[in-house]
Amino acid sequence: MAEMVSNKRVILKRHVQTGIPSEDDMEIVTAETTLAVPAGSSAVVVKNLYLSCDPIMRFRMTRREVPSFVPDYVPGEVMDNVGVMRVMSSGHSDFKAGDLVWGVTGWEEYTLMNNPESLFRINYPEFPLSYYTSVLGSPGLSAYAGFFDVSKPKKGENVFISAASGAVGQIVGQLAKITGCYVVGSAGSDYKVNLLKTKFGFDDAFNYKNEPDLETALRRFFSEGIDIYFENVGGAMLDAVLPNMRMGGRITACGMISQYNLERPEGVHNLLYIITKNLRMEGFLLPKYFSVYGRFEEEMAGYLREGKIVCVEDIAKGLNAAPAALIGLFTGHNIGKQLVAITHD
Amino acid sequence: MAEMVSNKRVILKRHVQTGIPSEDDMEIVTAETTLAVPAGSSAVVVKNLYLSCDPIMRFRMTRREVPSFVPDYVPGEVMDNVGVMRVMSSGHSDFKAGDLVWGVTGWEEYTLMNNPESLFRINYPEFPLSYYTSVLGSPGLSAYAGFFDVSKPKKGENVFISAASGAVGQIVGQLAKITGCYVVGSAGSDYKVNLLKTKFGFDDAFNYKNEPDLETALRRFFSEGIDIYFENVGGAMLDAVLPNMRMGGRITACGMISQYNLERPEGVHNLLYIITKNLRMEGFLLPKYFSVYGRFEEEMAGYLREGKIVCVEDIAKGLNAAPAALIGLFTGHNIGKQLVAITHD
Repeated sequence: MAEMVSNKRVILKRHVQTGIPSEDDMEIVTAETTLAVPAGSSAVVVKNLYLSCDPIMRFRMTRREVPSFVPDYVPGEVMDNVGVMRVMSSGHSDFKAGDLVWGVTGWEEYTLMNNPESLFRINYPEFPLSYYTSVLGSPGLSAYAGFFDVSKPKKGENVFISAASGAVGQIVGQLAKITGCYVVGSAGSDYKVNLLKTKFGFDDAFNYKNEPDLETALRRFFSEGIDIYFENVGGAMLDAVLPNMRMGGRITACGMISQYNLERPEGVHNLLYIITKNLRMEGFLLPKYFSVYGRFEEEMAGYLREGKIVCVEDIAKGLNAAPAALIGLFTGHNIGKQLVAITHD
Repeated sequence: MAEMVSNKRVILKRHVQTGIPSEDDMEIVTAETTLAVPAGSSAVVVKNLYLSCDPIMRFRMTRREVPSFVPDYVPGEVMDNVGVMRVMSSGHSDFKAGDLVWGVTGWEEYTLMNNPESLFRINYPEFPLSYYTSVLGSPGLSAYAGFFDVSKPKKGENVFISAASGAVGQIVGQLAKITGCYVVGSAGSDYKVNLLKTKFGFDDAFNYKNEPDLETALRRFFSEGIDIYFENVGGAMLDAVLPNMRMGGRITACGMISQYNLERPEGVHNLLYIITKNLRMEGFLLPKYFSVYGRFEEEMAGYLREGKIVCVEDIAKGLNAAPAALIGLFTGHNIGKQLVAITHD
C-alpha cells in the first residue's frame, strides 16, 4: 500500500546574507517518500514536473530579523517555489490522481501537500506544461496585473521595460504592443537585444552593458519621455529613468534584481522627479490577483493560440542542475524564463 | 491720469546652482510704476499685500538645461510667487478697483498683470488676509489635495508627516486628526515639536536632530507601521521611513526640502520596500486641483471658524526682509508658514 519511492530534493545548506549565492549554499540529497496520503487527511501527493527559478528565491535565502512578506528558507529544509505538478494520490475531494496543477511546491521530485486548496488547475494542457511556470503562470500573471492594473496603459504611450527578455519583461512588452504602445526594452547581451526585436516584437532594444551613460541612452529612444517604466532591475537604471519620465508617468515596481545580492542597495538620487514630473511609483504583490487568474489564463491562452504572444524558456534538465539554474538568474545567464524540468530518472 | 509711484522690488541677481542662496544673490531695487492699466488692455494693476516664501522658489533660482515644470527665474528680473493683492485699477470686466485676490504676483509693491484670469478671488476677507498665502491658499490646498486625493486616508490609519510644523505639514496633521488618524510629526527644534503637540494636536512629535537613528526613532512611534507618509523633506528621512511602512502604505511626495541645496541629492537605498510592502509613492502638482479651490476654500473656512484648524504664520515685515525670510526656509529658521507683509512705506 504505502509504496516508498526515492525522492531527490534541493536543500538550503546555509543562509546567504549578501552576494550571489553559490551552488555550495544548496545541497542535493535523496530521501525516501511515500506516494500515499496519510489516512483520513485531505492532503495530496504530487509529482513535480517543472520548477520555476525566480529572483524572489534569492530574497528568501537571506535570514531576516524582521519577517518579510515571504518566509525565509530554513537551512536543512527543502526549498520551495512555484512549479507544475501531477497529482499522484489525493485525500481531497477537489483533486484526483492524474490532475495537472500548478502552485507552490517543494524543490524535489515528490511533495506531500497538506493544504492543496491553494493550487491552481491547469485548464489548457494543450500548451507545453512548462508554460505554467512562465507565460500561463506567475510571471504571466505578474506581467498582466502589473501592466494593466498598476501601469494603466493607454494606446500610444511610451513604455520602457528593463530585464526585458526575462520571464515577466517579455510578456509585458508583448502586452504593451497589443495595447498599441511604443515599446523599448533593455537587456544584458546583444543576443537578448536581438531576441527582443525579432522574436518579441519590441520597437527597439539596447544592451545596457554597452551604454556608458544610461540616462543619455534612454533619451535616444524616448525623445518625448517615458510614460510607463516597468521596473525589474532597480539601482542605476531607475536613477537614469527618472529624469526621462514624462509628466504624469508611472513606474511599476515588479523587481529590482540588480540589488538583491548587494550588502547595501545602491542609492537612488533622482527621486525629486516624482514630484516635479508628477509621477506614481507603485509596487504590487501577486496574491492580490489570484482571484482573476481564471480570466487571465483564458485571455493569455487566446493570445498564445493566435500567435500574438510567444514565450521563450530556458529549461535546465534535472534537479542536479537546479542550483546552477537559480544562480544563473543573477548573472544574466538565462535566456528567457528559467525553469527546471524534473527528469525522474 | 498716469500717476507714477515708487515701486520697490526684489530682483534675482544671479542663478544659484547649488548650496543655500545668500541675500547677496538677490537685490532690492526701486523703480517707478504707473497704477493705470494700459489703455484698451484687459490687464489689472495690483498692490501686493502679502508675499509667500516657498521652497519652490529655490528650485527656480537654478538655471536648468532641460526646462522644468516651472520656469527658472531670470537674473535682472523681478522674482515672482504666490501673494495676496488688492486690485488698484482694472481693464478686465471680472475685476474692479478694491477687489481682494490671490495668485502669482511679483516680489514688489505693485504689479501689472496682463493675464489676471488666473487670479483667485478672496471670498472670506473676515480671516487675516495673510491666510491666503497659507491655510486658505496654496499650502492649504496642497495639504487638502495631497492628503485626501493622493494619500487617500482611512479612519484609524497611522500618519507620519515630516517638516510637520511647516506651511503644508501643519495643515495635513490637523486634517489627519479630523479624519480620525493617529498622527506623528517630525520637526527640527524642540520648540516646533512642542507646537505640534500643543497647538496642532498631533498625537506625538519628535525633533529629528536629536535622533541618532531615524529608522529606530520611527519604530518607537509606529510599532505597527506607517500607513501614510506625507513627504516634505526627502533624503535620509525617506530612507528611514521605507522600512517602517505598513503593507499597502502610501507615500505622498509633496516636497524634499533637505535636497534642494545639494549639488547631488542624497541616495535613497530602501526602495525595494516599495515592492515587498506593496507601496505607492506618488507626487502631485497643485494646478490639477485649482478647479476644486472653491470647495476647498469653503470647507477650510468652516474648519477655521469652528476652531478645528489653526494656522501659525511667521511674518517678515517689508520687502527688505524678504530675501532673508526666503533663505530662512532652508535652515529651518521659520516657525510655521513663512511670508512677507509688504509695508508700502
